[in-house]
Amino acid sequence: MTPNIDEWPHTGVTVFKDGIKALPAFGIATKDAEMLSELLKKEKINVFLKTNCKVLPDKISHNVIGEIRGSKYPDEFIVVGGHLDSWDTGGGAHDDGAGCVQSMEVLQLLLRSGYKPQRTIRCVLFMNEENGLGGGKAYAEEAKKKGESHLAALESDSGGFTPRGISCEGDEKTFIQRFKKVNDWNDYFEPYDLRITKGGSGADISPLKPTGTFMMGLRPDSQRYFDYHHTAQDRITAVNRRELAMGSATMAAMIYLIDQYGL
Amino acid sequence: MTPNIDEWPHTGVTVFKDGIKALPAFGIATKDAEMLSELLKKEKINVFLKTNCKVLPDKISHNVIGEIRGSKYPDEFIVVGGHLDSWDTGGGAHDDGAGCVQSMEVLQLLLRSGYKPQRTIRCVLFMNEENGLGGGKAYAEEAKKKGESHLAALESDSGGFTPRGISCEGDEKTFIQRFKKVNDWNDYFEPYDLRITKGGSGADISPLKPTGTFMMGLRPDSQRYFDYHHTAQDRITAVNRRELAMGSATMAAMIYLIDQYGL
Repeated sequence: MTPNIDEWPHTGVTVFKDGIKALPAFGIATKDAEMLSELLKKEKINVFLKTNCKVLPDKISHNVIGEIRGSKYPDEFIVVGGHLDSWDTGGGAHDDGAGCVQSMEVLQLLLRSGYKPQRTIRCVLFMNEENGLGGGKAYAEEAKKKGESHLAALESDSGGFTPRGISCEGDEKTFIQRFKKVNDWNDYFEPYDLRITKGGSGADISPLKPTGTFMMGLRPDSQRYFDYHHTAQDRITAVNRRELAMGSATMAAMIYLIDQYGL
Repeated sequence: MTPNIDEWPHTGVTVFKDGIKALPAFGIATKDAEMLSELLKKEKINVFLKTNCKVLPDKISHNVIGEIRGSKYPDEFIVVGGHLDSWDTGGGAHDDGAGCVQSMEVLQLLLRSGYKPQRTIRCVLFMNEENGLGGGKAYAEEAKKKGESHLAALESDSGGFTPRGISCEGDEKTFIQRFKKVNDWNDYFEPYDLRITKGGSGADISPLKPTGTFMMGLRPDSQRYFDYHHTAQDRITAVNRRELAMGSATMAAMIYLIDQYGL
């Protein structure tokens, strides 16, 4: 889970194949793993590990949603979002406090610029990404139930680092033509060293993909992400204010273009 | 000198126009400047400043040079470099310890890969960039005296952050054709999100430009540079190992291509 040799367990999901009895599983720091590995080369060793982790029963929690109603097409939704929860050891600053802050900032930036969206721009802070996409699935189900038509969704869930661009995906039927249009906007992004590319979008918005939504993910510089990801080091001091703000601006620019020119 | 409001003086050169008597000049932190500014709005204030800075007589110091002799064209030189000195308050990690380490690493990477350069690849760690380009000027003079022909020079002096590409410049006569060739190599760099562009190169190598040398600068992500530049915060803990190494690799790739295919 990290390219570094350091002192923090980089944790994450443990999965056992069907039919295999689950064993207690531990995340240990790479430094400790290296030490164990060295010791094992020399002799047989015994290690005492104690954990107090357990899976508690599910509890109701909630997505947090805010929106600017569209002036012309209020029933066409454009979603921008991140997820509210974080891994247990993690402070959740880059994963995904950054994405939440940036998504709220997109609405703020549009409001502060005096822009009146034609479509409904909705900021969704999804609950429970880390343990099964509960919030993302519930959001898509609720949208279906209400007959809400989602034109596009943009997620930020790769850290609050300098943005490199936005990657796009979608269902086969509509993607090629829409991507052609969005790809033409590269001229607006390239002067800021940003590129619109094909690629993944985001876990929380993924349940919207089968509904024909145009799917996008903010693509930040990835080099430092796994220094912090799912560790106690993922704290707000690891987030650079300027890098974070540039991500918000990149997302706001894309949301503006989609709202203004459609897809 | 910084977009941040922080506690460290971000220092640099002070220049007085000809005919104006030099005044004592101080660098103060932006937080202190803000406080002074607020106080001055309320009342007339007196501030006591004391400095022990002075300009001492010049002393002899040296560039540090290492090279791999070319197997086929030993008299064609390709320079890669950074500068050894740093600003007085600065730890000099990003400015320009990073560039020095990366330039040495270029030679290391070529050696470790078993590659035998056709041309002479020379790593130059320039002395005194900050106070008048003494090392850069001396290097170019020495090269002229020895009749050394410099095909290309690549400097890293913008911090050890994730590389975004390499920018190129040169004298009018030879630049267009050579840049066309180098620009075609974008296909090799783009999969790593790197771009070859026109733009500045580096201060230390600039005295080589009039000799027809193809001039290049490593272009790292610039967002955090002025968090550290010319402050006591420019320490090795501010350098990310992986970002630094990717810069070295980018430089080595370009040096390899020029050595292998010429210009």
